[in-house]
Amino acid sequence: MADQSIRVEKSQSRKAKPDSNNLVFGRNFTDHMFVMDYTEGIGWHDPSIVPYQKLSLEPSSMIFHYGQSVFEGLKAFRTQDGDVQLFRPEKNIQRLNNSNERLVIPPIDEELGLEAIRQLVEIDKDWVPDAEGTSLYIRPFIISTEPYLGVSPSHHYKFIVIMSPVGSYYKEGINPVKIAVEDKYVRTVEGGTGEAKTGGNYAASLKAQEIVEKEGFSQVLWLDGVERKYIEEVGSMNVFFKISGEVVTPMLNGSILAGITRDSVIQLLKHWNVPVSERRVSMQEIYDAHQNGNLEEAFGSGTAAVISPIGELYWEGKHLVINEGKTGELSKKVYDTITGIQYGKLEDPLNWTLKVEKSSVNN
Amino acid sequence: MADQSIRVEKSQSRKAKPDSNNLVFGRNFTDHMFVMDYTEGIGWHDPSIVPYQKLSLEPSSMIFHYGQSVFEGLKAFRTQDGDVQLFRPEKNIQRLNNSNERLVIPPIDEELGLEAIRQLVEIDKDWVPDAEGTSLYIRPFIISTEPYLGVSPSHHYKFIVIMSPVGSYYKEGINPVKIAVEDKYVRTVEGGTGEAKTGGNYAASLKAQEIVEKEGFSQVLWLDGVERKYIEEVGSMNVFFKISGEVVTPMLNGSILAGITRDSVIQLLKHWNVPVSERRVSMQEIYDAHQNGNLEEAFGSGTAAVISPIGELYWEGKHLVINEGKTGELSKKVYDTITGIQYGKLEDPLNWTLKVEKSSVNN
Ligand SMILES: Cc1ncc(COP(=O)(O)O)c(C=O)c1O
Ligand SMILES: Cc1ncc(COP(=O)(O)O)c(C=O)c1O
Repeated sequence: MADQSIRVEKSQSRKAKPDSNNLVFGRNFTDHMFVMDYTEGIGWHDPSIVPYQKLSLEPSSMIFHYGQSVFEGLKAFRTQDGDVQLFRPEKNIQRLNNSNERLVIPPIDEELGLEAIRQLVEIDKDWVPDAEGTSLYIRPFIISTEPYLGVSPSHHYKFIVIMSPVGSYYKEGINPVKIAVEDKYVRTVEGGTGEAKTGGNYAASLKAQEIVEKEGFSQVLWLDGVERKYIEEVGSMNVFFKISGEVVTPMLNGSILAGITRDSVIQLLKHWNVPVSERRVSMQEIYDAHQNGNLEEAFGSGTAAVISPIGELYWEGKHLVINEGKTGELSKKVYDTITGIQYGKLEDPLNWTLKVEKSSVNN
Repeated sequence: MADQSIRVEKSQSRKAKPDSNNLVFGRNFTDHMFVMDYTEGIGWHDPSIVPYQKLSLEPSSMIFHYGQSVFEGLKAFRTQDGDVQLFRPEKNIQRLNNSNERLVIPPIDEELGLEAIRQLVEIDKDWVPDAEGTSLYIRPFIISTEPYLGVSPSHHYKFIVIMSPVGSYYKEGINPVKIAVEDKYVRTVEGGTGEAKTGGNYAASLKAQEIVEKEGFSQVLWLDGVERKYIEEVGSMNVFFKISGEVVTPMLNGSILAGITRDSVIQLLKHWNVPVSERRVSMQEIYDAHQNGNLEEAFGSGTAAVISPIGELYWEGKHLVINEGKTGELSKKVYDTITGIQYGKLEDPLNWTLKVEKSSVNN
């Protein structure tokens, strides 16, 4: 299937690009999008780059009723010498297929998926902003489109990629955030869909998020759905703690998303010979470490924020202030290194970036 | 808001109606649909009945990414004297608002929601089929439509009602089905969204369903996500067991959908002075009752099938055949009574039906 060539239909008009210094997250989209259809019996077909446009769907389309969908999120960065590069995009395509497996969606050809993203970014490369900390956010997603009201896997899907120039995800930037440990709601549970990047997990998270925001916290820290003791992740980030010089992060247990930033952090720490372990981490352990003065740093990791230091954890009525509410040294080093690699300011020792070749296409 | 009158735009053309004796579930839709929009700051507005038509949505619409959606399912029945009636429709509207609460979707006005359904059925009443066991399936649903890629509650929604003439949901009809107890996957967990009728719960269920279907079972019986011991529900049905003359059903614990058929069954049994209790029911208890010869009947309850007798339960390698694989006496009596009331063949002692008045509207 990878030899299916991508049809390109250029947009007749170009939209005005937003000011690079005033970007908001996820509200402006580029001139083109990628679309590919799946039809039972035919498979994935007609990969195309077309002008960014609305979707016209039957109201009975399964996506509106039974939530069968998956998505991904990655970024393209503009380097100092004007090139555009992607960060570990093949990992996103692999994870998309892992999510597909859980959601009973037919897998896409990974080479074709990667090429679709590469070509789309190339065509809209003028949309990759160049101000500090900005990037082009890329959103591949698959939705079930069969017009049928019955609970069963759809026979039709659309794989779509849209792109949005973005500033920093968190208004606070690299400044530490306050996080509340959630004790009532759960995001997902082992045996559920937590490992997959599917809409329902995010829909399930809105209620708790709404409540803690009103209380002045920026995100929720989720505990496991069974014992309500073990730390899972934070909002749309995986989470790391530095305790007595060792970095710990919850192991991938089936209900946590296997973050690509998480993997990058672990690989970097190993590269630096910083002790790091993936294991069960209870909230009690974090509390105890804090009481004993051993909780040195805490941060979330994710594509949107890269690294988001945690300045305070709120748990069972107790406010745990971490590193005096300031960004920790290691957190900062990880952030600087990953963003440095992403923007081509630092060497790329682990071969994480993929250049989007300068195109000869008449843009 | 209930005094907002519903704008009606009649369809210029009428679709051919499918043969009443050959209806398939959820594939044909009537001539009209109801649509109402929500805009932050304005609220729900412009309730309208319009020709059945496609939806045109931005690819960044939140429904495609974060699954914020809810739905309902109810039916309109044609009685012997040609009237059309609904079965406890106010319960569906109430449950829709309960689901909204969990999914952080603004509530709809319940009177207006009910009136929307009533008027829509009235306008398309010729679509209510009259063959034995057929009905008009009504699907109200709400989707998040804001074009924004950020995990937060949407500021725009659409509430839509579509309708489809249907035959029996289960190909097997009232014949007993084989059900497999699921031990790997879970549908949801306490603190999750199980109590809400939201797409993600159904998306999460597809994988297990796919596996057991290949093994010859028609549905999955879900166990609780914490201890994996207690019975929750079956596919899209609540579940009842008759043990030594007493009927038991899992209590509403936060992860089970509060089925309207479930409530109707409980009320009927009480009306008949049949002992019925809502409590925790473990799979071990059901197994023991079966071994001791005390498991007399088992059935699922839901709008689609009304009552679906369970002829066999498969659990941990053991096949529990119930009532020799035949429909139990009480199951049959409950089925006959509820369908009798729905089709106006029996008295309606609990006041469950709502007549859709014959319309003077020029149809
Ligand atoms: C639930 C959740 N956890 C963690 C992450 C971090 O994953 P990644 O580092 O691949 O962005 C994300 C997504 O971005 C997420 O949605
Ligand atoms: C998960 C689930 N459980 C139970 C039911 C039964 O509910 P009701 O009797 O209201 O149709 C349904 C829906 O129809 C359902 O989707």
